[in-house]
Amino acid sequence: MPIIEPRILKGFRDFLPSQEIARRSLMETVEGVFRSFGFVPIDTPALEYAEILLGKGGGETEKQIYRFKDNGDRDVALRFDLTVPFARFVALHQAEITLPFKRYHMAKVWRGENTQRGRYREFTQCDFDIVGSDSPGADFEILLMMRETMKALGVEALVHLNHRGLFNRFLEYRGIRDKSVEILRSVDKLSKIGEEETGKQLEEIAGKEQAGAVLEYINAGGTFEEILDTLSGLAGGPCPESERLSVLRRFIIDTGTEASFELDPSITRGLDYYTGIVYETFLKDDPAIGSVCSGGRYDDLAGLYMKDRISGVGSSIGLDRLIAALENLGKLERLSSYAKLAVAGSREEDGGRCQALAERFRSGGIACEVLLEPAGSADPRQLTKQYILAEKKGARWLLILTGDSEKFTLRDLKKRENREDLSFEEALKIAGN
Amino acid sequence: MPIIEPRILKGFRDFLPSQEIARRSLMETVEGVFRSFGFVPIDTPALEYAEILLGKGGGETEKQIYRFKDNGDRDVALRFDLTVPFARFVALHQAEITLPFKRYHMAKVWRGENTQRGRYREFTQCDFDIVGSDSPGADFEILLMMRETMKALGVEALVHLNHRGLFNRFLEYRGIRDKSVEILRSVDKLSKIGEEETGKQLEEIAGKEQAGAVLEYINAGGTFEEILDTLSGLAGGPCPESERLSVLRRFIIDTGTEASFELDPSITRGLDYYTGIVYETFLKDDPAIGSVCSGGRYDDLAGLYMKDRISGVGSSIGLDRLIAALENLGKLERLSSYAKLAVAGSREEDGGRCQALAERFRSGGIACEVLLEPAGSADPRQLTKQYILAEKKGARWLLILTGDSEKFTLRDLKKRENREDLSFEEALKIAGN
Repeated sequence: MPIIEPRILKGFRDFLPSQEIARRSLMETVEGVFRSFGFVPIDTPALEYAEILLGKGGGETEKQIYRFKDNGDRDVALRFDLTVPFARFVALHQAEITLPFKRYHMAKVWRGENTQRGRYREFTQCDFDIVGSDSPGADFEILLMMRETMKALGVEALVHLNHRGLFNRFLEYRGIRDKSVEILRSVDKLSKIGEEETGKQLEEIAGKEQAGAVLEYINAGGTFEEILDTLSGLAGGPCPESERLSVLRRFIIDTGTEASFELDPSITRGLDYYTGIVYETFLKDDPAIGSVCSGGRYDDLAGLYMKDRISGVGSSIGLDRLIAALENLGKLERLSSYAKLAVAGSREEDGGRCQALAERFRSGGIACEVLLEPAGSADPRQLTKQYILAEKKGARWLLILTGDSEKFTLRDLKKRENREDLSFEEALKIAGN
Repeated sequence: MPIIEPRILKGFRDFLPSQEIARRSLMETVEGVFRSFGFVPIDTPALEYAEILLGKGGGETEKQIYRFKDNGDRDVALRFDLTVPFARFVALHQAEITLPFKRYHMAKVWRGENTQRGRYREFTQCDFDIVGSDSPGADFEILLMMRETMKALGVEALVHLNHRGLFNRFLEYRGIRDKSVEILRSVDKLSKIGEEETGKQLEEIAGKEQAGAVLEYINAGGTFEEILDTLSGLAGGPCPESERLSVLRRFIIDTGTEASFELDPSITRGLDYYTGIVYETFLKDDPAIGSVCSGGRYDDLAGLYMKDRISGVGSSIGLDRLIAALENLGKLERLSSYAKLAVAGSREEDGGRCQALAERFRSGGIACEVLLEPAGSADPRQLTKQYILAEKKGARWLLILTGDSEKFTLRDLKKRENREDLSFEEALKIAGN
């Protein structure tokens, strides 16, 4: 029979063990932080009615979505983010959840992106949100979680914070609120296209004088308080939005986290639905890689699916980018296995004893892989093969059973030396260190 | 704007926090066991070329698979199991993996099953396999892992073990090997349709005398050794297959796991590709729910995608069934949150102090949720609302900040009593117990 060429779709990925171990270790750390904040996990289907996922419909999404008719002729699609399914989830399960609801969701999403830009068509999103609370405490909690998550991963984050509502108030005050979409889009590209080009675009949109004012706003400098003063001044004086930023500043001071947050009026976030604070998170040691975690406050999560408005604030971690950054910084542990210890018998009939001994190590808290072929101690080449195999498997230690003895030899695969004549307890202690 | 009805596809599920916490806890326990055996995780795309997934093609699969044309007009499909993608993975990454390769994979798969039979169209599979080893040690390791996994979940397993090859040899010896597919299919249904009906079917397939011999084979009773004697006798005497079972029996004795394994000649497993041992796992406290973990040895994993034969042995846990069984047995912990402690301030301006205090508890190893609205100690109704909220969230303790004091009140939400005037260290100790 002819062989089918083993291949995968462009933009999709296999994860080999060492990659998958690194990904999981990162996700487990992140989840640990979420859980420590009392956030709870949910899950939703990968496949939903296209009507649900597309909502109002919309150009880019519609073109990128994996949409098809299922066997029952239903119009279905793979989820392209975790926000839309979350909105649908909240509307459907209103009666079953307690507000404020703090949830996280780590799962795959699919988009038929143009892979030439280095985008994947299948990737994991990691969203965390608080819905059902307008309080600044909710805003700050999400900000703090971003900081703590990065800290748990061994890196320092600088969160660039802004308030979309204050910017809108500024546009209103300047009489150019009707051009806000174009202006926001242009400002959002600032870091990519540079100030000159942004200035040119703004001039085209709103004229020279207004462009100057917008540039003044997004370039406001100084301390948090100074910038905030400038912004409220430009927006017509103190207002609820500038007050929200003051309160957040108080939270930052009360938690001693000043070094992790800065007010950055150039942050806008492209997406329409943000209405309050918005933020992007950069790594202090590798800011050039871009934001690894971003989000904001919205005042209507699930309006498409329910009558009541539920507001919230949330953030999304870009796992692929974060992994790349951690790898660059040497912060990603590369393991080829969880097992520190390998066990091998020297004779065919030692198989059961090897497994029994491995169980004793596992009970002692040491992950332990049994090498399935006997080491054949009579033949030194056979033994060398076992050394190589155990090393390839990522073990640090190799224990070889000799005869029926209750004494063991422990091979240190790193230092390439043997510790002989050890009792089980001695071997456990050495391998456990 | 009209509201879109929030609904999900039939056969698909949302997981609310308490369900998702239970599922994750179970999956984490299972993964912990896999890792302790030196098994490594991999991941593969949800979507693959239909040609890869369908392979030889085949009736039932073809009808159930979610298959469609993507935006680039490629013929693609959602994976319907983890075995086919694993075969493709091994063929594609031959050069990057070390044999014997011990991998696990926990991920969702999709099948357009008939939901009337209580089947889901999206479910999580959990596969673990050793490929690239023919040794009985590999067979036994998979058997032992099934036992240890169930033990880690707090239940005792009884693994029903058989050898497909020995049964084939018996059919050969009786001269009815050509009818093996029908015979296997009929024997596989034994527990569902009963012995009488099986006998009738076997008679139709192979005649009265042969049916009697098959029934004698699958009903062989006694100890492991006695059954094995009967089977090899019926199959024409000792042979490599009966020897394999003897060796596995020695493994069982050497590891003192006799109570977990029995030889059951009626186990056949429907799937064609098993050639060696096959097994199903039942819970001693709830055998009626059926096998929660099953698999076997195959001698050609990836023949569709590569020239070399790679043999292996593996098993698959039926997560949904296992969760149902654990729930029945009261072995599934039902948590509504990971946070044991909730923290609330009494005044608006306590927000930052609450977050700072919560961080201290988290550093002390206690997951801690901040209640976002101030408790308003002046108003007892407001305080009662916080008690109720903290309880609903699943916390055991509620700490309320009063004024600027460094002394705290800890509310025991279970006993409904307060511990007053505690230092941080005292509160940490109480909440940590």
